[in-house]
Amino acid sequence: MSSVKSASAPIYFGSFLVTPQVNSPSHLSNRSSKHEKLTEVSTQVFHQTPLSFALVNLKPILPGHVLVSPRRVVPRVADLTPAETSDLFLTVRRVGRMVERLYGATSLNIAVQDGVHAGQSVPHVHAHIIPRKPADLDPIDAVYDMLDGEEGDVGKAQREAQTGLPADSERAKNRPRFPVVDNEERKPRTAEEMKAEAKMLEREMEKESLD
Amino acid sequence: MSSVKSASAPIYFGSFLVTPQVNSPSHLSNRSSKHEKLTEVSTQVFHQTPLSFALVNLKPILPGHVLVSPRRVVPRVADLTPAETSDLFLTVRRVGRMVERLYGATSLNIAVQDGVHAGQSVPHVHAHIIPRKPADLDPIDAVYDMLDGEEGDVGKAQREAQTGLPADSERAKNRPRFPVVDNEERKPRTAEEMKAEAKMLEREMEKESLD
Repeated sequence: MSSVKSASAPIYFGSFLVTPQVNSPSHLSNRSSKHEKLTEVSTQVFHQTPLSFALVNLKPILPGHVLVSPRRVVPRVADLTPAETSDLFLTVRRVGRMVERLYGATSLNIAVQDGVHAGQSVPHVHAHIIPRKPADLDPIDAVYDMLDGEEGDVGKAQREAQTGLPADSERAKNRPRFPVVDNEERKPRTAEEMKAEAKMLEREMEKESLD
Repeated sequence: MSSVKSASAPIYFGSFLVTPQVNSPSHLSNRSSKHEKLTEVSTQVFHQTPLSFALVNLKPILPGHVLVSPRRVVPRVADLTPAETSDLFLTVRRVGRMVERLYGATSLNIAVQDGVHAGQSVPHVHAHIIPRKPADLDPIDAVYDMLDGEEGDVGKAQREAQTGLPADSERAKNRPRFPVVDNEERKPRTAEEMKAEAKMLEREMEKESLD
């Protein structure tokens, strides 16, 4: 469960690098300007275990909405080993406990869109953890509309952060309830905001027991 | 992972007995007619591990929609021990693999409503597993409306099965998209249908590897 062991290993969320890049010349020689841009969002990870990691969102649906993924980039839960599965959900439980405490919540939505036909936008297993409190959304299930709508399209959000331009959402096509205009009016958070939140959550995780 | 070990131990989903009752005279002497009625829905479990069990739904949102719970009746994921958490999600993974194969699906929605303000209707941890395939619902996120609407109110469905009467849903009050009339038009499945499905799924689980 030590976060020290693998702190220097790069972590990818799908094709997106989400840990700080090591500035080695060999790395630099392969970089495009697009890659440089990507560096700006490479500080989203706030917790690491040997097999899993937790990261903040570009556009959280509610305060404290975070993701937990296996380190290995595989699309489906069935692709995980038993050890990866256990580690992933023990991490979900521990991170969930932390965000619930930190954001003064009373419940959590935990959801895995396991495969593209379940609404998955980045082909890398990820569990959404969304802190809930009384009357935060009306109706209570609006969180699911948002999770599966463009608001929850983490792939689109990551592409926007990478390019600095509005990205198309594959989901826009059949989503009368979430037209693109709604989404474009919402500003993605800056790299600085995400970095600050990740740092804060990292400190908060240190207060959690390992159980 | 043996299902033999605890096959005779009664299993409760919240306050609902979901395994067959042992017809011992000492048990019978304590029964009310309500309890007899409950016996009719006591064959929902199709898979057991030392710490978890899987059960069929009274009103599945889509074919193959099943639930996985820890044996210990606790409301929150944070209440589980690490061993219970691991066993629960290893069971989710194994059961998910089975229903995806059996129902010809290509993806899975996996969702835990962890606490009442996240939409939980029975105060006993349970993961929904919902097999998905292309164009099964339009829009793709309709499953969440249904999961958190009356369709997914497993507490209401269990109360109806127990009493044989339509039960009020706490969720009906703020749900313009899922008025009560919609729900009352949908017939809960009979005890026989559920028993037959549980038996069939139990056989299918034997084809899955323990990994």
